Amino acid sequence: MDSFRVELGAHAHPVHVGTGLLDRLGELAQAAGLTPGRAALITDANVARLYGVRAVASLAAAGFAVATIEVPAGEASKSLATLERVYDRLAAASLERASAIFALGGGVVGDLAGFAAATYLRGLAVVQVPTTMTAQVDSALGGKTGVNLHAAKNLVGAFHQPRLIVADVNTLLTLPEREFREGLAEVIKYGAIMDAPMITALETAMPAILARDPEQLARIVGRSLRHKAAVVASDEREGGLRKILNFGHTIGHAIEASAGYGSYFHGEAVAIGMVAAVGLSRAHAGLSAADADRLTRLIEAAGLPTQMPPAWRGQNAADQGAAAGGRGGHSGRAFEKDFERALKLDKKRAGEGIEFVLIDRLGHALTRTLAFAEIVSYLA
Amino acid sequence: MDSFRVELGAHAHPVHVGTGLLDRLGELAQAAGLTPGRAALITDANVARLYGVRAVASLAAAGFAVATIEVPAGEASKSLATLERVYDRLAAASLERASAIFALGGGVVGDLAGFAAATYLRGLAVVQVPTTMTAQVDSALGGKTGVNLHAAKNLVGAFHQPRLIVADVNTLLTLPEREFREGLAEVIKYGAIMDAPMITALETAMPAILARDPEQLARIVGRSLRHKAAVVASDEREGGLRKILNFGHTIGHAIEASAGYGSYFHGEAVAIGMVAAVGLSRAHAGLSAADADRLTRLIEAAGLPTQMPPAWRGQNAADQGAAAGGRGGHSGRAFEKDFERALKLDKKRAGEGIEFVLIDRLGHALTRTLAFAEIVSYLA
Repeated sequence: MDSFRVELGAHAHPVHVGTGLLDRLGELAQAAGLTPGRAALITDANVARLYGVRAVASLAAAGFAVATIEVPAGEASKSLATLERVYDRLAAASLERASAIFALGGGVVGDLAGFAAATYLRGLAVVQVPTTMTAQVDSALGGKTGVNLHAAKNLVGAFHQPRLIVADVNTLLTLPEREFREGLAEVIKYGAIMDAPMITALETAMPAILARDPEQLARIVGRSLRHKAAVVASDEREGGLRKILNFGHTIGHAIEASAGYGSYFHGEAVAIGMVAAVGLSRAHAGLSAADADRLTRLIEAAGLPTQMPPAWRGQNAADQGAAAGGRGGHSGRAFEKDFERALKLDKKRAGEGIEFVLIDRLGHALTRTLAFAEIVSYLA
Repeated sequence: MDSFRVELGAHAHPVHVGTGLLDRLGELAQAAGLTPGRAALITDANVARLYGVRAVASLAAAGFAVATIEVPAGEASKSLATLERVYDRLAAASLERASAIFALGGGVVGDLAGFAAATYLRGLAVVQVPTTMTAQVDSALGGKTGVNLHAAKNLVGAFHQPRLIVADVNTLLTLPEREFREGLAEVIKYGAIMDAPMITALETAMPAILARDPEQLARIVGRSLRHKAAVVASDEREGGLRKILNFGHTIGHAIEASAGYGSYFHGEAVAIGMVAAVGLSRAHAGLSAADADRLTRLIEAAGLPTQMPPAWRGQNAADQGAAAGGRGGHSGRAFEKDFERALKLDKKRAGEGIEFVLIDRLGHALTRTLAFAEIVSYLA
C-alpha cells in the first residue's frame, strides 16, 4: 500500500493506493478519524454488483451502519434529478452531521456523491473510493464536485475535499477496455504538464499497463495522484497553478458537450483536446516538433483518439460542397455551432477569450489567454 | 446610513442599513469591490413589481448588465425545481466567475439565490438585498443558504458569505402586517440570548415599531444585525457559539414542518418555539418566573403567537376521547407524529437527543442536550 497525505491545512487528508484495499475500507476510514455510526454508500448499479457487498461488509465490520444508495450507471446520473433522489434517501436514512458518505464508483458517482455530501446538512464528510482509472488518477482527488445542467457539464458544483481517498487498483481489472484506456489520458497529462521523465516511463511501460499488470497500475495511479496532490495543495481553489490541470480539457469539454454527452468518453475527448493543445502550443508557446510528436504518439499508443470528431472535419468539407454527417447524428455545421457555444460556456472564460493551458516543453505548462476565434480557426 | 463590517477574515464584508439605499445599490456594490459587468438579479414576483426597476436602474448606472430572474413569491420557490430553473437562466445569461448575483427579496429569495451563487460555477459573489423584516434582521447575514426537500426544510444548503448586505428599511413599509410582525420574533430573540437592555428598549418602543417609524426600524435592524455579525464572526460555521442563534428554532422548525409549510410563518413558529424554550429554560436552566413572563409578554405585544398549534392540544384532548382537528387539516395524532419526525430531522440532532438552546436569564443563552422524549413530554 502506497500512502501519502494531501496537504490542505484544515482539509488535509490521507490517500491510499494499492491492491485489495476494498476489504480494508472500514479500517482505513476509522484510522482517518471518521466516526462509526450512520453512513451512506453511494454507488452505481454496475459497481454495486461487483464491489458493493465487499465494501459494505468492510464498513459494517468497523461499525458503520450503511444505507446503500444505488443510482443508474452512466453520465445521465450526474443530474439534479438524481441528486434530488439521493437527498431524499439521505433524509430517509436519518443521516446526521457526524455521518459520512462513501462514494464507490467512477467519476459520475464521485462527483454526484461529493456534491451531495457538500450540500446535505450544509456539508458531511465524504470518502472517495474510486473504481475507474479516470477517477483513481484524477477526479477523486481535489475536491471538485458537481452535477451537469442540460446547457453544459459541471456548471453546478462545489469544492468539497474528501476526508480520505482509497484507490484499490484491483477494481481496474474489471473495467471494460474503452473505460480503462480513457483513464490513461489523464495519466499522460501529468507527464505532459509537470513530469517529463514520466513520459519516458510511460513509453516503456505502456504494454504492461495495457495488460493491466497490477504493480504497474499501482505505480501510475500513485505517481499521478501525488502530482495532482502537489498541485491542489498549492492552489486548492484553482486561483492559479491548479489551472494547468485543465491541459486538454477546454477543447475536450467542448467536444463532449457538442458531440452529445456519451458519444465520447471524457478521457477520449481530453486526448483529442491534448493533441489540439499540443498544436496550439507549437504556434503560441514554442513547443518543439519533436516533443509534439512524442506526446501525440504516446496518446496513440494508449489507444486513444487524436483527431477532432468526424463531424468537425465534415463541416469543413461541407463548406466545399461535400456531404457532412458526424458521430451522434450531428451535421458538421450544427456540431461547429454547438462546439463554439460549449467553448464559450467554459468556466475559464474571460470576455471573448479563454485562459488556455499550453506546454512549452514536455513536463512544463503555462497559461495564455487565447481568443475563441484563434482556437476555432486553428482547429479548422 | 449605518455601516459596519462583518469580520470574517477572507470573507469579511460590509453591511449598510438605512432609508433609500435601494437607489444606491450599484454605487454600494462598486464600493464593495464588485466588478461591473454581467450580473443577475434574483427576486420574486411581488418584490420585482415594487422594487425591481429601481434596483436594476441603480445597478445599470454603475455598469452592471443585469439579467433579472423572477421566481414565484412564497416558500414553494425554495425548491430544487426552482433552483434548476435559476441555474438554466444563469447559463442563458452567460454568467462568468467574476459575475455577481444580487438577491432582492425575503428569506426565500436570499436562501435560494445564495445557494445558486454558492454552487453555480462552484461559487459566484452574492449581494444580499433583503426586503423583509426577517431577512433584514436575520437571514441575509451569516452565509447560510439552501433549499427545502419534501422531507424537511433546509436539509440542503451551503455556507456562502455575501460580499455585501444592503438593508433599505423603506422596503419594510410595504410589507403585509403579518410578514412584518413575524420578523420581530428574531429581533426579540437577540435580546433574549445576548442583550437584556434590548428587551427593555423593545418593551418601550414596540408601539413606534408596530407603527413602522423608519428611524425605529433602522435602529432595531442595525442593532439586530450587529449582534448577529458578532456571533457569526466568532463562529462562522456554527461549531459553537453560533448555535445560540437557534433559540426558539428547534421547536419552531418542527412546527413549520408538521403544520405544513405555510400554515405558520417562520417567525410565528419561532415565537411559539421561544415561549416553549422559555418553559424548558425554567425547568432546565433556572430561568426566573419574572424573566419568563417578561419575554412571553413582549412576544405577545409584538402580535405573535405563543401557544402550540391547536392540533397539538387537540391531540392531547383526543387521548381523552375528544375530537381533534388542527390548522392545515391535520388531526392531532398525525400532527404529533409529524412534529416528532421533524424534530428528529433537526441538524442539531445527536443520537436520541438534540442540542437545545436555553436561557438562564434575559440576555444570556447556553446549550443543553435534551432527549426528544423530554421535549415532547414538556410540550404535552
